[in-house]
Amino acid sequence: MPTYTAPLEDIRFVLFDYLGVDQASHLPGFADMSRDTIDDILNGAAAIAENVLHPLNRIGDEEGCHLENGIVRTPTGFADAYRTFCDGGWNRLSMPESYGGFGVPAVVAMAVNEMMTSANQAFSMYAGLTGAASAALMGFAPDEIKRLYIPKMVRGTWTGTMNLTEPHCGTDLRLMKTRASEQPDDTYRINGTKIYISGGDQDLTENIVHLVLAKIPDEHGQVRDDLGQVNLFLVPKFLVNSDGTLGPRNGVTCTAVERKMGIKGNATAVLVYENAIGYRIGPKPEASTTKGATDSPVATTAPRSRGMAGMFAMMNMARLGVGFQGMAQAEIAYQNAAQYARDRLQARSISGVKNPELPADPIIVHPDVRRMLLNIRSFVEGARALGLWLAMENARARAAQDESVKNRAQDLGDLLTPVIKAFFTDMGFESTNAAMQCFGGAGYVRDTGMEQFVRDARILQIYEGTNGVQALDLVGRKLSAKGGRAAMTFFQLIHSTINTYSADERMAAFIAPLKTAVDRLQRATMWFAANARAYPDNAGAGASEYLRMMGITAIALTWTELAAVSLRRIAEIESGTPGRRDFYQAKLICARHWMERMVPETAAQLDRIEAGGENIMKMHADIF
Amino acid sequence: MPTYTAPLEDIRFVLFDYLGVDQASHLPGFADMSRDTIDDILNGAAAIAENVLHPLNRIGDEEGCHLENGIVRTPTGFADAYRTFCDGGWNRLSMPESYGGFGVPAVVAMAVNEMMTSANQAFSMYAGLTGAASAALMGFAPDEIKRLYIPKMVRGTWTGTMNLTEPHCGTDLRLMKTRASEQPDDTYRINGTKIYISGGDQDLTENIVHLVLAKIPDEHGQVRDDLGQVNLFLVPKFLVNSDGTLGPRNGVTCTAVERKMGIKGNATAVLVYENAIGYRIGPKPEASTTKGATDSPVATTAPRSRGMAGMFAMMNMARLGVGFQGMAQAEIAYQNAAQYARDRLQARSISGVKNPELPADPIIVHPDVRRMLLNIRSFVEGARALGLWLAMENARARAAQDESVKNRAQDLGDLLTPVIKAFFTDMGFESTNAAMQCFGGAGYVRDTGMEQFVRDARILQIYEGTNGVQALDLVGRKLSAKGGRAAMTFFQLIHSTINTYSADERMAAFIAPLKTAVDRLQRATMWFAANARAYPDNAGAGASEYLRMMGITAIALTWTELAAVSLRRIAEIESGTPGRRDFYQAKLICARHWMERMVPETAAQLDRIEAGGENIMKMHADIF
Repeated sequence: MPTYTAPLEDIRFVLFDYLGVDQASHLPGFADMSRDTIDDILNGAAAIAENVLHPLNRIGDEEGCHLENGIVRTPTGFADAYRTFCDGGWNRLSMPESYGGFGVPAVVAMAVNEMMTSANQAFSMYAGLTGAASAALMGFAPDEIKRLYIPKMVRGTWTGTMNLTEPHCGTDLRLMKTRASEQPDDTYRINGTKIYISGGDQDLTENIVHLVLAKIPDEHGQVRDDLGQVNLFLVPKFLVNSDGTLGPRNGVTCTAVERKMGIKGNATAVLVYENAIGYRIGPKPEASTTKGATDSPVATTAPRSRGMAGMFAMMNMARLGVGFQGMAQAEIAYQNAAQYARDRLQARSISGVKNPELPADPIIVHPDVRRMLLNIRSFVEGARALGLWLAMENARARAAQDESVKNRAQDLGDLLTPVIKAFFTDMGFESTNAAMQCFGGAGYVRDTGMEQFVRDARILQIYEGTNGVQALDLVGRKLSAKGGRAAMTFFQLIHSTINTYSADERMAAFIAPLKTAVDRLQRATMWFAANARAYPDNAGAGASEYLRMMGITAIALTWTELAAVSLRRIAEIESGTPGRRDFYQAKLICARHWMERMVPETAAQLDRIEAGGENIMKMHADIF
Repeated sequence: MPTYTAPLEDIRFVLFDYLGVDQASHLPGFADMSRDTIDDILNGAAAIAENVLHPLNRIGDEEGCHLENGIVRTPTGFADAYRTFCDGGWNRLSMPESYGGFGVPAVVAMAVNEMMTSANQAFSMYAGLTGAASAALMGFAPDEIKRLYIPKMVRGTWTGTMNLTEPHCGTDLRLMKTRASEQPDDTYRINGTKIYISGGDQDLTENIVHLVLAKIPDEHGQVRDDLGQVNLFLVPKFLVNSDGTLGPRNGVTCTAVERKMGIKGNATAVLVYENAIGYRIGPKPEASTTKGATDSPVATTAPRSRGMAGMFAMMNMARLGVGFQGMAQAEIAYQNAAQYARDRLQARSISGVKNPELPADPIIVHPDVRRMLLNIRSFVEGARALGLWLAMENARARAAQDESVKNRAQDLGDLLTPVIKAFFTDMGFESTNAAMQCFGGAGYVRDTGMEQFVRDARILQIYEGTNGVQALDLVGRKLSAKGGRAAMTFFQLIHSTINTYSADERMAAFIAPLKTAVDRLQRATMWFAANARAYPDNAGAGASEYLRMMGITAIALTWTELAAVSLRRIAEIESGTPGRRDFYQAKLICARHWMERMVPETAAQLDRIEAGGENIMKMHADIF
């Protein structure tokens, strides 16, 4: 059975040493964020993750969720754990105090969410999606809805879901068929079928608040294949009286729970809406005027309908969260693989016996095992720092007077959201597989729990827009938006880091590869600029490679900064400041590993991008 | 539900257009191999794979194997299918006619085995391991054992298994504890526990022939932690009377069936041997004289004990077979992904609407989807041709008078066996994942069957020696054997191909990348020669990268040859010879894809190798 120990030392390193979160009391929401307070939060989160959530991870996988007499039964222990989780307030750390949340800065809440995901991804999704749904309501719902629903969702008394996919359409929401017919009382009647709804039904809470995309038919009662008619609706499982008590059952039924590769503890529901009462969230859509709106290859990321704004707010938040889920799965898989590699005695070191008193050396003596472990670790620690840095940049930007500071954070967030979603989850899957590989045959057997991490992590590359869709969003939309301002901001940021450390010879081992990476990335960017307008398939054929290149480069930037911090701390420790020198030495090893082992990939990516799309497009569809 | 159509056209292309198997009647065993005969074999195999084995693939995954009252129950339909399979002779195509086989050349049998694996990997393992076990007996067993056991195994009346792993040791067989105590009647009593025994028990056959590695204790009754005492034993589930009838139950019991990530239709057994009667296969081991024998990091590949020769013969065969399993899983996953990509209407092409009469374009219009499909396909077709070419080289070498021809085939086989095992299975796993990704959310749901391919393919990177162990075998053993002769043979082969086509400008697009790949591979080889002697961890740290580099280069060589064949055939078709021009055009597209998309990776691999092992070894084990 796997174990989980929250990586508190590393989280504290990022929050305090790197980001100075405890030194930012001038920022809104950070006034109370002393180091002690943050430590209390982290320690409390670690305790519930390790002791309550993690023990249920395997049970959730073994039992799964089952539809019984119209109600979904979650695995043994989930309902109790959910109550404990909400009673402790862990579901609402970063939500506004006005709605009953704790107003903790996102940068701290993200670190907490990482622990919950590592401990039990399937479980943590119930609360995670509720957070995204209530945030959408805060931004876009009418006041009465806000009053009735948000406090209950914030408290965890009710959960929330996102309903986008239908049997015949997922990415391409233009094709959606679910209808919302307006009633004289300004409510709507929702009819249609939604699939793949995470937490779509459960026995954890008395009510579920579904946020549903549906089309408002035109005056002839027709729905069209474009986004112009799409709006977001709130459809509760049980109707809610004006005093907040529950009314009758609404016309939404869970007809099936999908059997999946993983995240079996989370109920993935088929929901059938039959004359369900719904409430419009956001402005009524106007008739579509642009024909071009039907042609977007990445419809879900295109806010073509003002009525979809709430859903997009949810999705952007969710995408960053999904990226962090990938890192979190890699973290727990790493912990168990490292422990196994230290314990498992098998064969001898190729550089001479290391453990003569025992019949064999531990497998951690083998460079190939270390390589796999360091691949994972340099990803996890780099990704954690990059994600939290972005959250901190956002906090600083919100407080800034200067428009350019605000723009910078917005640009970087826009640019890096698809990168974090796709690259972190690709690496999360690769990492869980590498960790499983360290176990040899034992990794393939369910008892060790390593293969569950692989199966759970696999969904992350698919949901919230497949990673291929993220790459198209990056290359097709984010690169060209505002005249390419976001990419330029990113490149400038890297060059500024390079300049900062270029005179420091201890930093040369990091600066040179970072420069290599950004040079290649800029060259790829220029290649798209020169070659994708006339032949758009050149962009499509290189999009996934480009996204991965940007991910590697972004983490190389992060490792450069972390190396600088670590060198500084080592110098302080050598001057007598207390601290764990070996912790910071390990950072330098990981930073170097990323440069030596991941940055080289960018050469291959550039070559592939420059090969273009012509050969890929040449094969006739029938010959595939 | 997935479908399977045997890739007969491509197999015929490789066997006839590329390898000329039907023109090789001068080779032993090829006399009867006319094109018609081979076609009959292939068509018959396709029919049973498609109609009998494939329909049971999902059932096997759903039901798994269960231990009931001491007997393992295989999934519904497996026993009937096994009878049909053996009645048709599909289990013994390439076995010698003297034992009741059909003596079909290995190159044809491999193509048949591919189909069986694609159709149902878990099922085909029962017969596959029996083939390996009976081959070991043919090579090393005493005549009486041969007479009693081999014909039954060849007929499929009994199955065979390989017993190596114990709870505390897998790769490092030095540590094995299972004991074989010699009896006055020259039999042995076997005591110990073996785990991860594929097909270790089942209800398909009346008897099971276990080939078991065990140690013969020294004169003081002690077993030591080295390979010197290891021998191979035959231990039947039921004892066999001298007339071939079954005697009493032997002392081997299946105490558990592992619950695994995949290949659930194959029973992975824990076998407990308690005074089981065993028969020694191969010469009695001599007392170990070299202390160095205990230090091998890759003990399972080191024939330190003459008594293990039979097991090594089995394992080398098995390793090539496992590589082909990886390709076979990629093939069926590809077929279903390509079909889905043609059928699924979702979004529009970025280069303009392709399907104006329908609400959306099929997703095969998207370059990123095509990229994934072509990654798989260029691997599958290249790997199939490389594997069958190697089998044909072996056949030619066996018939050759010239020692250098024999050596060349032997060298290439030795060198490429770990490459085919590890690279084909890594690519097999990547391919099944890419195919699943083409399905989006539907790929994660069990109903589509795509995630089963991923789970089944995952074991291939682990069993028969993890892929990391294969890499160590390649770099630590195969590269340096006979003064590096095997690698030189491989490089010469590539340069000879480059020279052959260097004047043909239609071949330039293939020759240039092939040259790039082999240059990098030779540079990496020289780097090891210069840097790994003084610091062996430099070899260990780069071994997996080197193996992958060699795999990419070997398939680049193969694609170059296939491109030349295809250009020739296209010219013939243009001159009026009947044939499918688009088939050969697709070959050129795939060849180019491999060069544009896979060969660039070798740049990254070379960089990583040249980074060495120093940084990887620097981290203290406790800090991991």
